[in-house]
Amino acid sequence: MAKGLPKRSEDYSQWYNELVKKADLAEHSAVRGCMVIKPYGFSIWEKMQAAIDKMFKDTGHSNAYFPLFVPKSYLSREADHVEGFAKECAVVTHYRLKNADDGSGVVVDPEARLEEELVVRPTSETVIWSTYRNWIQSYRDLPILVNQWANVVRWEMRTRLFLRTAEFLWQEGHTAHATRQEAEDETMQMLDVYADFAENFMATPVIKGVKTESERFPGAIDTYCIEALMQDGKALQSGTSHFLGQNFAKAFDVRFAGKDGKEDYVWGTSWGVSTRLMGALIMAHSDDDGLVLPPKLAPIQVVIVPIFKSEEQLNSIREVADNIQSQLRDMDISVKFDDRETNSPGWKFAEYELKGVPVRLAIGPRDLEEGTVEVARRDTKEKQTKNVEGVAEYIQTILKDIQSNIYRKAHDFRTESTSSVDSYDDFKRVLDDKGGFVMAHWDGTAETEEKIKEETKATIRCIPLDFREEAGKCIYSGKDSKGRVVFARAY
Amino acid sequence: MAKGLPKRSEDYSQWYNELVKKADLAEHSAVRGCMVIKPYGFSIWEKMQAAIDKMFKDTGHSNAYFPLFVPKSYLSREADHVEGFAKECAVVTHYRLKNADDGSGVVVDPEARLEEELVVRPTSETVIWSTYRNWIQSYRDLPILVNQWANVVRWEMRTRLFLRTAEFLWQEGHTAHATRQEAEDETMQMLDVYADFAENFMATPVIKGVKTESERFPGAIDTYCIEALMQDGKALQSGTSHFLGQNFAKAFDVRFAGKDGKEDYVWGTSWGVSTRLMGALIMAHSDDDGLVLPPKLAPIQVVIVPIFKSEEQLNSIREVADNIQSQLRDMDISVKFDDRETNSPGWKFAEYELKGVPVRLAIGPRDLEEGTVEVARRDTKEKQTKNVEGVAEYIQTILKDIQSNIYRKAHDFRTESTSSVDSYDDFKRVLDDKGGFVMAHWDGTAETEEKIKEETKATIRCIPLDFREEAGKCIYSGKDSKGRVVFARAY
Repeated sequence: MAKGLPKRSEDYSQWYNELVKKADLAEHSAVRGCMVIKPYGFSIWEKMQAAIDKMFKDTGHSNAYFPLFVPKSYLSREADHVEGFAKECAVVTHYRLKNADDGSGVVVDPEARLEEELVVRPTSETVIWSTYRNWIQSYRDLPILVNQWANVVRWEMRTRLFLRTAEFLWQEGHTAHATRQEAEDETMQMLDVYADFAENFMATPVIKGVKTESERFPGAIDTYCIEALMQDGKALQSGTSHFLGQNFAKAFDVRFAGKDGKEDYVWGTSWGVSTRLMGALIMAHSDDDGLVLPPKLAPIQVVIVPIFKSEEQLNSIREVADNIQSQLRDMDISVKFDDRETNSPGWKFAEYELKGVPVRLAIGPRDLEEGTVEVARRDTKEKQTKNVEGVAEYIQTILKDIQSNIYRKAHDFRTESTSSVDSYDDFKRVLDDKGGFVMAHWDGTAETEEKIKEETKATIRCIPLDFREEAGKCIYSGKDSKGRVVFARAY
Repeated sequence: MAKGLPKRSEDYSQWYNELVKKADLAEHSAVRGCMVIKPYGFSIWEKMQAAIDKMFKDTGHSNAYFPLFVPKSYLSREADHVEGFAKECAVVTHYRLKNADDGSGVVVDPEARLEEELVVRPTSETVIWSTYRNWIQSYRDLPILVNQWANVVRWEMRTRLFLRTAEFLWQEGHTAHATRQEAEDETMQMLDVYADFAENFMATPVIKGVKTESERFPGAIDTYCIEALMQDGKALQSGTSHFLGQNFAKAFDVRFAGKDGKEDYVWGTSWGVSTRLMGALIMAHSDDDGLVLPPKLAPIQVVIVPIFKSEEQLNSIREVADNIQSQLRDMDISVKFDDRETNSPGWKFAEYELKGVPVRLAIGPRDLEEGTVEVARRDTKEKQTKNVEGVAEYIQTILKDIQSNIYRKAHDFRTESTSSVDSYDDFKRVLDDKGGFVMAHWDGTAETEEKIKEETKATIRCIPLDFREEAGKCIYSGKDSKGRVVFARAY
């Protein structure tokens, strides 16, 4: 508000764009479609990375690093894969620039043309499976449980900070197994890891499900996903886990000798989440005053703002603040004391609301007299005056409460925003009036799915894992259906 | 040896290549000049990253992320910079592939040519200073203390795993300051951070110094460096810190209003270390049996190998091992119990020597009877039989001792390998006979530097920070010199 954020109710899209910029999360760069992730935004991403990376390691995975470039011919090895990725990729054709003859700067040196063009990785299945070929001879070499944190490039025409950018940061897990069952178990395990992270760290409830054929990852047998709901009623795919079958093993001839000596192709999975999660985090919880961050992902969990007129007052406040800070740090709570004299307390209040700091303490002259401190929660905006004595324990408690309250709020919103409809008219009305997830019968064909998408912009987000058998009629074709799938308009 | 590593004395270069591969650190990929960093190698890099990142944050820096691509015209903005980097870069010219008309696969779509070519960043000064232009208006916006962890590409023609690859991983710090003094202080601070890391984590002594003009970073006023010595007597530049003056601020028009209201260009620094450090770490300490890792960077600090004939024995050993493991973990010491039955104890001994695990415990039937355990140090190969009681504390002590012993050994080697010469004949003889750092007088001209390099392959590694004034004659030209500089053949 102080910073002139549009209201969500008036222009949700503009609110998001402005919030990302004003809260110092990210900005567009001079390079088309590529973003700069600013230090504050990156510090949130680092918290996410640390939590996710720990979950990967706790489930037996190791990190590694594979090349940025994919030889053009590799993409073609898997038919669906090349169809899916060739159309939007950055192609390296030369390896040198030279001074222009007219002195106007540098130009591509035509003599430095690559024999085979290289594509900047849009995803790394091809490079990694070509490598696994050398790593795998027998069942003893399996499973391979590897992840990499990397940048990838997909030449999107319409970009949006965090949600859709030409270059983005992500992790991509690539595992290789001796049996179909093991690979399927891995696929589901990683889906569960993602759902766990979304719910317990991002405080965002998600629906777990499997994608329809037309939304499947190019080259996968099955794509599982977690789908979150944003405050404007649109869905956001927040993570995917792919069962690759033997597709990439066949494309790159990766075979292994089993215990019985028989040769077979290796079974694979891949799974990823990206800086898109930043978009989900921002849109799921924030309000018209700025970010609302779940404490577990907040770079600064507590800020202390002194209210003072004289240097003497500031010094007295600093003593109290230092004491609180050291108690909080002992509890592993991150805290910042903002004693800058260049900005007013009011400016700071607005600034830390904008930045989503979960708890704000204010200490003024009267607090000094009475041994108190004002404690404000970012999520509910509630303020309480507390005795300095015991305030650290109180903060510890409300940080936990904020984490669960944000989740509960998002969960309630999702419950309210989930509808079940039985006719196409109701379907369209619900989409236009309230949006959200719409549970509806579908005849199982790609044609119907495509028609509904064309006419309503809603897509099948997934066939939920908790799919219940229920005889019904497809809302579009009237044909038989065995149960409801999840539709929504989506990012 | 078991794994057939060549001896260092016979073929140092081959020993290095084989060690990198056999210890599962890295391998060449199908993409020319790009490497795959394997899980074990990457886990060492992660330890390095964590330690360095903490040092950056402790000195007030934050991480951020800037685009992978640099518009071609940006490179040209700084004259020296484009000279230095245009000749070896990957150039993106198109953003789409399409199916070939003859069905042979995919080809570059000629209609998807970029208006301006993009260079895959060889370093990010230009992209970052073009961004800083929008971040900086007044002295209040300064300093900016930002780092990024990223991949970069320099199209090297002759590559070597970790030491010189087309793509490598690094961190690049880019700071902006209101005064020359502040920028110079930052440059030196980060050089000290690098030296601190090299000596206290990598156990590698380094010489701090400033580069001569011809070895300077393209676009810098001064380039400072740390130089380490490898066991074959060759130097390895292990980190650089550049004082950029106002060069990039001028190239990208980054000005600020000072406290007095006057406008001036911003002062800059940049500094980086890369996966090259992995090469330094490997070459500085390892021996003919494999890696020797300093405990502070070892992914596994202690391995426990059971020696058993029956399941019953293994179970009894496991009880002892579990107890030791939990004590070690309480001390934050990483430990692995390798109870695989597929490999013999002898095979495991060789394997963990190859992988550089600092301490190996072996527990056999006789140890069970006597309540003992065999403790072997990787650095000295010493073995001791110790009572299980108190062995965790003993291990804690020897891990510290190994860390300092490895450093001392490298330091002694460097002392022995540092010579002072006063004639060109002696200079050449020392280089050929023992290599190492050669302290010699130089007349200060680029011509002499170049001649010496042509004739001997030795370069001036740096003018050491502890340069002592000492009148002398240049070993090559016989002209007056004010003191000795550090020569060496280098990686």
